[in-house]
This record gives sequence, structure tokens and C-alpha cells, in this order.
Amino acid sequence: MKKLLNNPDDAVRESLQGLAAAHPDLLAVYFNPTYVVRSDAPVQGKVAVISGGGSGHEPMHGGFVGKGMLDAACPGDVFTSPTPDQMEAATKAADGGAGVLHIVKNYTGDVMNFEMAAEICQTEGISVEAVVVDDDVAVKDSLYTSGRRGVGTTVLMEKICGAAAERGNDLATVAGFARQCRESGRSMGMALTSCTVPAAGKPTFDLGPDEIELGIGIHGEPGRERSTSKSAREIVELMAEAVLEDLPYQKGDRVIAMLNGMGGTPLMELYLLYGELERVTSARGIVIARNLVGNYITSLEMQGFSITLLRVDDTLLQLWDAPVITPGLRWGG
Amino acid sequence: MKKLLNNPDDAVRESLQGLAAAHPDLLAVYFNPTYVVRSDAPVQGKVAVISGGGSGHEPMHGGFVGKGMLDAACPGDVFTSPTPDQMEAATKAADGGAGVLHIVKNYTGDVMNFEMAAEICQTEGISVEAVVVDDDVAVKDSLYTSGRRGVGTTVLMEKICGAAAERGNDLATVAGFARQCRESGRSMGMALTSCTVPAAGKPTFDLGPDEIELGIGIHGEPGRERSTSKSAREIVELMAEAVLEDLPYQKGDRVIAMLNGMGGTPLMELYLLYGELERVTSARGIVIARNLVGNYITSLEMQGFSITLLRVDDTLLQLWDAPVITPGLRWGG
Repeated sequence: MKKLLNNPDDAVRESLQGLAAAHPDLLAVYFNPTYVVRSDAPVQGKVAVISGGGSGHEPMHGGFVGKGMLDAACPGDVFTSPTPDQMEAATKAADGGAGVLHIVKNYTGDVMNFEMAAEICQTEGISVEAVVVDDDVAVKDSLYTSGRRGVGTTVLMEKICGAAAERGNDLATVAGFARQCRESGRSMGMALTSCTVPAAGKPTFDLGPDEIELGIGIHGEPGRERSTSKSAREIVELMAEAVLEDLPYQKGDRVIAMLNGMGGTPLMELYLLYGELERVTSARGIVIARNLVGNYITSLEMQGFSITLLRVDDTLLQLWDAPVITPGLRWGG
Repeated sequence: MKKLLNNPDDAVRESLQGLAAAHPDLLAVYFNPTYVVRSDAPVQGKVAVISGGGSGHEPMHGGFVGKGMLDAACPGDVFTSPTPDQMEAATKAADGGAGVLHIVKNYTGDVMNFEMAAEICQTEGISVEAVVVDDDVAVKDSLYTSGRRGVGTTVLMEKICGAAAERGNDLATVAGFARQCRESGRSMGMALTSCTVPAAGKPTFDLGPDEIELGIGIHGEPGRERSTSKSAREIVELMAEAVLEDLPYQKGDRVIAMLNGMGGTPLMELYLLYGELERVTSARGIVIARNLVGNYITSLEMQGFSITLLRVDDTLLQLWDAPVITPGLRWGG
């Protein structure tokens, strides 16, 4: 295992310390229990938006804490759900009296632990709503979850709900936008190579030198199929068709398209893939109104990518365009 | 070779087409000869800032074209200098009558070709100044150059000179800031793994499973030494000391610190490394006034990182903080 770490057991903590050292103007990190929170939290009268999940997917979620996106994030160990006490502490630290939205990816541990934390907070008088993202069209049930996995739509939902909260929408409205994103977003990923969890010290799975895996999960969970290598064009066509046909997206739909790298894919390739995606969507009469190309929801050093499409209306686009100032996503401020 | 490409010979062109498709509001791409240019170029009365070099280092340079940074960029083949006709075309397309600054990394081909292009443009009445970046402290002479290689300081220089040009400084002043950056910036890189040039189809160099290379070049040129694996802390200390002692940076100096990923390094590790760097600099009484953590000057899918420190004064910091809107670097707008 080749990694730039000290003791693998300290990797998450030390990485979070580095995040805090790099962005003290935006966020603070607390330990025991561990969470990342906006430096100006709680913002009185504002709905707080919180997410969390295993580490190893950076910048998601800690890198999306800041103005106009997340108020707090709970990082678990690598590829491991955070614990309820983390979510409880983050919820209390971020609550400004207007309630808290939990954005949860559909993995059994995450869902259960966020539910437990929400119950505790609610008994103490904090309003909590939760929306579970399950946008991955690749497989019906996966290794770590019943139902579809939650992946790329999470990033877009965090941005949009963060903007709604920032402009003063109430909890029901912010949660409504989250549900709209949930209904309107679909994703699929693929891998050329595995990743290696630091504590495990060996690759999560094996792929032959001429093998790829279509529909891979962000923890390396099995996808739809293994196949021999294909061209970028063929891969994008397969994945984009699977995404487009699932909702289904229709001619005239406007979408936000995210061409996301899994962590180890050169940006040169991501832009090439985006060009292929744009070709497929425009042939279908689907309009990419906004796009994101880069590493946003990753799997350590895995080589591969995912496609996320989110169908939007004028309101979602307005929320998308609103200023965001976080380590991982920034514009307008 | 596992890559997300179609025909390797088309990779640069297709990637640039994807870049143009993703960012039509910021830039346009032309072919034969190939260059990337601000969508509103030429900006009348503004100094134009242009750079270029081999592809495979994305987002540098094409991803830094936009408002407040580069007016144009010339991408060569992967790890190969662009040709003088590209630089000539880019210079003519970007010139708004106030002259053009060429920011050149010190590699023999780049320097020679930029010189030829500058001569042609000057005979046609365009004022051109060139500044050559040679900030890599790792080795005195390298595989592709005589003298030190140009690496990370280039990114910071492009941002600072772009801001100076944007606020209306004349060519002599903008070039003066470039020279100040050249004098005040130092870098060093390292690799855990090699990268693979698409057209070559096999790794540029071999590193054993327990080997790392300190002082690696961005094309995989040999560094200072190969060693067995070390902890992140030890590696950062070695590299930061080499950078700090070179200028030398002194107690009380303020710097912009870039902790740059080589393309295949997880962001989780980059932040951990940043935390280590911050520990080293603060122990020396050096103040990191601003920082960048992420992939800015890469080597395809290489795993590794580089450290760049740029000593700044109030003026450089002001230019750094000015708005920038490019695919690869964005704030304030």
C-alpha cells in the first residue's frame, strides 16, 4: 500500500486537522465526537443543513461546509458510517433555532445512525427533517444497503438546500427542495482500478489489467457488470443511457450535469468524458444548463468516474447559481 | 494501460473540446494551431497574459483561462512543448493593444518556442515580454532543461499577473510582478507512482512497491533521490526544509502555500499533508497568509504531491485576493 499518511489509524483525524488549518475562515473541526461545522455556527434563525458519511469521499462532505452549502458534516472512519453521537453533536452545534435538515445517503448504517440522532435531538426540542438520497441506478440492492445507493445527487442537493437555507427558507421548504432533488437526480459510476482503505492495506477488490467495472459503488461495492476495456465514448454512452432511461429524462429537460472523478482520474480525461456526455445529452434534446467537472464525491485513489444528472426548473437553477463559499465548491463570493 | 480515452492520438483535442463545451462562458478553443482563449478576447487596452506547455498537467494551463488569470493558453501534446505557431496565434488573438506577457516554464522546448513566437509577434508590432519560471529546488539541471525546472510557482504567478492585468496595470508593471514571483517562489515535488503517457502506453518510470522518489519532475524526470517509503510527516519535513532553505525564507515571512496533488492523490491525503506543512512553517515562524490545497499542476494520474511557497507582500496578496473566474481557480465572482 502506497499512501501519504502517518499511522493509518490517525489518517481521518489528521486530514481533518489539515482541513481546519487550511480554512479557519470557513469552518472548525471538533473531535470526540468528530464533526466539521461552519465557523459562524449556529446562524440564528437559519435552517441548518447537515450531512455525513464515511471518510474517503473528499471533498464530500467536510469540504462542503461553509457559506451557502452545509452547516456541518460528520465524517466517519474511511468508508464507515459516523456514529449517532457525532450527528447529535453536529445538529446541536449547527441549529440556529429554525430546525435542521439531515441529508443522508442510503447506506444502512448511515440511515440508522442519522435516525437515532434525529430522535434524540427532537426529544430535546430541535426540529429535524431527513431526506435519504438513493440515486444510483446501477443496482437495485447493494452490499451495504437495501435499495439504491446514494451517490452524486447528494452533492447537488447539498448545494441547492444550502442556498435555500441561506436565503431564509424555512425547514419545510428546504426539505421540499431536498425531496425535489431526490426525485429528479440519477447517477451511475464506473472504475478502472480499485482503491485501498488505509486500515485494510490492500485493494478492496481486484480488476484485471483489461477489465473495468460498470456501476461500481463509491466503496467499491459490485456494480452491474464487469467487462473488458471500452473506449471513453462507449462507456459514457452506456452509463448516460442507463441514467437517462431511468427517470426517464425527456427531450427539453434542463439538467445540471456532474462529471465526477473518483479521485485518481486525470482532469484531462474528465473533460474528455464530459465532451462525450454532452454529445449524448444533446442528441437526446436534453439541455445541460450547468455543469461540474472534477473530483466531488470520490473513492480515495480509485480511477474511474460517475455521471449525475439532476433535472432542474428555474427555482433550482437560481439556488444553484447562488453564492457558495466552501473548500470544495466556490463561486459568487 | 488503463485510461478513459478513445484513440490516444485524439486525447488532447477531445479533452480540449470537452473543456470548451463545459465553459463556453469563459473560454473558446481553436485548432490548427491549437490554443485556448478567453471568450471575450481581445480585451481592448488590457495587457494579455499567456502561458502554455505540454498537456497532462491540467488544470494548468487551459483551465486557468478566464477573467482575472490567463487570456490564452497553448496546450502541446502530452508532456510536449507547444509549437511557435500556437503561441503566435494565441498572442495575436489575446492582444488588446497593451502588450502581452508570456509566462514560460523552464523547459528547453518551451523556452525556445516561446522566444520564436515572441520575435515574430514583435516584428508585427505587438509588445511581448517573457518571464521564465525556474522554481524547482530539487535538481540543478534536469532531463529536459538546463537550469532548474519551472513548476508550481507558475500557477501562482499566472493568478497574480492576471489580476494585475485585469486591474489595468501596464505591461512593464505586470512583467515586474511576474519577476517578483519568480524571485520569491520555490517548489519541490515527489511521487509514489509513475504516470503513463497515453501515446507511450507504459509507465514513464518504475518505482518499486516500497520506493518513493523525492524531487520528481512533472514529466517524471528524475528527482534528488529514491528512498524507501516514509511517513507523510517525514516527507513533508524533507521537502519543506529543502524549499525553505533555498530562498531562504525567513522568520516573519508571509507566504502563499500551495499543497498540490499530482493527479492521483486523494484529497484526504492532500489535507493531511497540508497540516504537516503548516506545522513545519509555523515552527519556523513563517506565516501562511493564503493557501491552495488540491490538483493544480498535475502529471496525469501520478500519485504524489508538490509544495510551493511564494513569499508575498501586501501588493501580491491584494492581487491574489482579486476575483478570478476560471474553470480551475475561482473566487470573488
